[in-house]
Amino acid sequence: MCYKLTIAYDGTSYSGWQVQPNGQAIQPLIQRALATVLRSSIDLTGSSRTDAGVHALGQTAHFDVQDRIDPSRLRVSLNALLPPDIRVLQIDLVDSDFHARYNSTSKIYHYHLHLHPVVDPFVRLYRHHVFGICDLILMEKAIPHLIGTRDFLSFANEPGRGSASRSSVRTLLRLDIIEQKGGVRFEFEGDGFLYKMVRNITGVLLDVGAGKLAPDDLPEIFAAKDRRSASAAAPPKGLFLMEVRYTAPS
Amino acid sequence: MCYKLTIAYDGTSYSGWQVQPNGQAIQPLIQRALATVLRSSIDLTGSSRTDAGVHALGQTAHFDVQDRIDPSRLRVSLNALLPPDIRVLQIDLVDSDFHARYNSTSKIYHYHLHLHPVVDPFVRLYRHHVFGICDLILMEKAIPHLIGTRDFLSFANEPGRGSASRSSVRTLLRLDIIEQKGGVRFEFEGDGFLYKMVRNITGVLLDVGAGKLAPDDLPEIFAAKDRRSASAAAPPKGLFLMEVRYTAPS
Repeated sequence: MCYKLTIAYDGTSYSGWQVQPNGQAIQPLIQRALATVLRSSIDLTGSSRTDAGVHALGQTAHFDVQDRIDPSRLRVSLNALLPPDIRVLQIDLVDSDFHARYNSTSKIYHYHLHLHPVVDPFVRLYRHHVFGICDLILMEKAIPHLIGTRDFLSFANEPGRGSASRSSVRTLLRLDIIEQKGGVRFEFEGDGFLYKMVRNITGVLLDVGAGKLAPDDLPEIFAAKDRRSASAAAPPKGLFLMEVRYTAPS
Repeated sequence: MCYKLTIAYDGTSYSGWQVQPNGQAIQPLIQRALATVLRSSIDLTGSSRTDAGVHALGQTAHFDVQDRIDPSRLRVSLNALLPPDIRVLQIDLVDSDFHARYNSTSKIYHYHLHLHPVVDPFVRLYRHHVFGICDLILMEKAIPHLIGTRDFLSFANEPGRGSASRSSVRTLLRLDIIEQKGGVRFEFEGDGFLYKMVRNITGVLLDVGAGKLAPDDLPEIFAAKDRRSASAAAPPKGLFLMEVRYTAPS
């Protein structure tokens, strides 16, 4: 039997989803809780290797197990074992060949910018605070250069990391700038994202908004196919993995 | 010159607004930052002595100072010295006889209940999670017994504490139950609140919602004029001081 987990976490205290040399990762904590409850060794495979400090409201993962289990009882047991900043939101029985990463058709990330001079204490861990100029109209002009099917090599750290293929071609289906209380958020939807790609694109958008780059500089950055041609990554605390989509209802 | 501060804080890490024997209080931190910036000893008087673990989005306070100051520069300097979970939102020059506590005409508190089985990690520090039954219709029926001008002695811990008068008569102007994502919030507006009064009223409402008390039990609790006649206080983490109102625009 194969089960799909939908998971939320506050990434502030963690070194990311996947095991890292330093710090506590999220995947091993959930995998260990699963092993404790199910009394057998479990392999838990996530859809996205979110980085240290990145948050999730809709991370997905799957595991295979011999016997049928009661999903809602398992959810209660797992949440009792897990720290309160990691919550299993839902568990669903899925087709036996389901794979959280390979079957996903698109992923949605949000990146939150705080633009007001004072940062409300309740969002301080979940927004990147932009000091100085942030021209939303210039940022909007950069979007057509980013969406579509492109080689995102200049926006990838360690290209090929965690990827089955070595290709750095991805399709960015949607990139919207949405106003919200205190600032804006970028909504990214793509068929897949390279390592640090969302934060690297956000870094370029911030430089465009600050007037350090022009929207028309983007084709040159893509053409360079070199990480060093693009801006520094935006900090992780503004980034949320919101949803992982699958074609068939799974 | 008299200046009014509007302050937000995440109360999770603090022992409350006012100095306490144990733990770090909020008022002395802001008072010390003021003294550092203004290079003189300052007395900072808050409108409400919020308890350990209680949050604020609109606490107010005032201080008097000899010279005229630039409010927005002072706000920036204070926020640079204060920890990020305490933010001065605004500073206004007010009449020289302004008093943050005595001049307030009403205060608004919100108490947040989480009613779903899974608590989203991002609200875990700001909602009281109710397990078991929580009948909103029964709670609504208790409201007419609570609003109006009454002697709230049964809902006060240490009556008389921090109060100029010894009277425990207060007017609860409004108490609404508002549905929100994951649960409900109680909105309280009153001309003043006794020590722990909002949490003690919330505790009674929770007992009504759970069927441990009937709405019609409330007159008896008021008549007893004894703290022991009412329910235990609801935990502090669900409580927010939202706004302190003053008659004249100050």
